[in-house]
Amino acid sequence: MHTSQLARRIAEGDRAALSKGISLVENQPELASKLLALTRRPPRAFVLGVTGPPGTGKSTLIDRLVDVYRRKKLRVGVIAVDPSSPLTGGALLGDRIRMSGHAGDDGVFIRSMASRGWSGGLSRAASQAVQLMDAAGFDVVFLETVGIGQSDIEVVGLSHAVLVVLMPGMGDEVQASKAGLMEVGDVYVVNKGDAEGSDSMVVSILGMVRDTKGRSPSVIKVSALNGDGLDRLEVAVEAIRSRFKRGDPSLRLRSAKEMIVQTARWDLMQRLDEEADARAEGLARLVVEGKLGVDEAAARLARLR
Amino acid sequence: MHTSQLARRIAEGDRAALSKGISLVENQPELASKLLALTRRPPRAFVLGVTGPPGTGKSTLIDRLVDVYRRKKLRVGVIAVDPSSPLTGGALLGDRIRMSGHAGDDGVFIRSMASRGWSGGLSRAASQAVQLMDAAGFDVVFLETVGIGQSDIEVVGLSHAVLVVLMPGMGDEVQASKAGLMEVGDVYVVNKGDAEGSDSMVVSILGMVRDTKGRSPSVIKVSALNGDGLDRLEVAVEAIRSRFKRGDPSLRLRSAKEMIVQTARWDLMQRLDEEADARAEGLARLVVEGKLGVDEAAARLARLR
Repeated sequence: MHTSQLARRIAEGDRAALSKGISLVENQPELASKLLALTRRPPRAFVLGVTGPPGTGKSTLIDRLVDVYRRKKLRVGVIAVDPSSPLTGGALLGDRIRMSGHAGDDGVFIRSMASRGWSGGLSRAASQAVQLMDAAGFDVVFLETVGIGQSDIEVVGLSHAVLVVLMPGMGDEVQASKAGLMEVGDVYVVNKGDAEGSDSMVVSILGMVRDTKGRSPSVIKVSALNGDGLDRLEVAVEAIRSRFKRGDPSLRLRSAKEMIVQTARWDLMQRLDEEADARAEGLARLVVEGKLGVDEAAARLARLR
Repeated sequence: MHTSQLARRIAEGDRAALSKGISLVENQPELASKLLALTRRPPRAFVLGVTGPPGTGKSTLIDRLVDVYRRKKLRVGVIAVDPSSPLTGGALLGDRIRMSGHAGDDGVFIRSMASRGWSGGLSRAASQAVQLMDAAGFDVVFLETVGIGQSDIEVVGLSHAVLVVLMPGMGDEVQASKAGLMEVGDVYVVNKGDAEGSDSMVVSILGMVRDTKGRSPSVIKVSALNGDGLDRLEVAVEAIRSRFKRGDPSLRLRSAKEMIVQTARWDLMQRLDEEADARAEGLARLVVEGKLGVDEAAARLARLR
C-alpha cells in the first residue's frame, strides 16, 4: 500500500491500517515520518501515561479506566511499552493477555511495543504511535511503561497526565523515588488499597510529592480488582482531562515539547551513528597513538559535518 | 586546587587527586574535559569490563582477580557503575563493602559511580574515570556494571575485554540473551560452578555464543568463593591481556572508538538540551496549533544552529 493511501485509511480510523502504520514506526522510521507528515493535524487525543514498578497492577487499572471511557462512548487506544530489562519482560506480556477482555471491541485498540536497541528509539516510536492513534481518531490514549528506568520515565513524559501506580509491600516509595517516579506523577494510585500498609503508604507519598514545589498531585487508594476507589480515581483523571479539553496550553505544550525533544534526540543519534561509521575508526587511531584526546576526538565527531 | 596542578598530581599517581578528578568527572563535565586534555598520553591501562545480572557474584570475582594482579605487582583500579534501576541498587552497594578487603592497599583504587539523569552521561563519566585511572598509572582497570539494560552494556563496551558473569538457577541464559549479554562477552563465567545445572548452562551458553559469527568466546565454570576454576579464568583473561600488551590494534581501537562515540553522544545531548531550552517551547506551540508536525519540529531543533 502506498504511504498516502495508508495515511488516508488511518485518518478514516481503519484498524488494519493503523496497525500497519505502527509497524512502520517500529521498523521503518523514515517511512513513518513521511506517514506522519501526511496525517498531520492539531493533536486532539488525551494521552494518559501510566507507570510504576512491575507487578503493581497497572494493566488491570488501565483495563478499568478503558471501561470508564467506553461507557462515555470514547474510542480508546493502549500502547504498552515493554521494558528493555529482561527481569520484568514476562510480567508485562502476561498483563497484555489479561487485557484481552476488550479484544472484540472496535472502540479499543491495544498494542505492545518492544524496546529494541538504544532506548531513545523507543520514546520516538511511542511518540509516533501516539500521533498515529490520534490521527485515527482515538479520543484517549493510554501509554503504559514499567517505571524502572530513565527511559520508561521519558516515555510517559510524552503524555498529558501521568498516573504512577504503586502498591503496599512491593516497590516501596523509597525505591519509587530513586526511579524518579516521585517527580513525574499527576496522580499517585496506591493499588490494592485494602492491603496492610496502604494508609501509611499514602501518607508517605503525600510527604514526598509535596516536597516538590509547585506540584500538588493527588494520592488515591484503589483496588483495581474489586473496584474500590475507582470512582475517585475517575474524578481525578477527568479533572485533568477537562482542563485538557478546555485547551489548557500547559498540558498540550508539555506533551508536544517532549515529543519534539525526544524525536530530535533520536534524529541526532541516527546522524551520529552514520558519522561514526565513516570517521570513528580514524579518530580512534589518533587517540590510541596519543595524538588526540578522547574528548577532542568526540568533539570533532559531534560536529556532524 | 588549579586544574593543571590537579593534572600533575594525578599523573604522579596521587590517590587524593585521582579521587578529586573523578568527582570532577561526575559533577563538572567541562572542567573534567580540561583536566583530561592536560593528562593526555597514549592509553596504557588494560580495561576489563565485568557485567552480568544482579547477584551472580561479579564483585567477589573481581576481588579474586584483583588478588591475581596484585601478586603480579600491578596497580589495579575498580570502577563500579551503580545501576539506575532501583530494583538492584542495594545489592551492588553491598558488594562494594565486601570488597573493602583491599581498602588498605595503596595499589588498589575502588570507586563507585552512580547513574544520574540521562544514561548517556554515565557512559561518558565512566569513560573519563577510566582515562584518569590510566593517567594515574593504574595497569589494570575493572569496569563493573549490572547487566540489565542497554546503558550497562554500553558502559562495558568501553573496555578491552568483557567478562559476562552468569550463575545457574538465576538470571538464566535466555534472559541474559534478551539483555544483550550474549553479544558482548569475550569470556563467559558460570559462577557457583559446583551448583546444580552449571554444566548444562555451559553447554547452552556455548551454543548461543557460537551462533554469533566470527566470535569464539570461552566459557568457564568457576566458584569465586572457594577458588575452583579461577586458574582457568586467569589464563583466559591473561591471553587477552597479552594480545593487548603486544599492541593488538583491534582491542585498543574498539575501546577508543566506543569512548569517542559515547562521549560525542553525550556532547550532542548537552547541546540539544541547551537548544531545547531556547526553542522547544516555540516549536511546541506550532505543533499544538497544527502548523508543524512533531517530526519537522524535531528536525529543526536537531539542526543545532
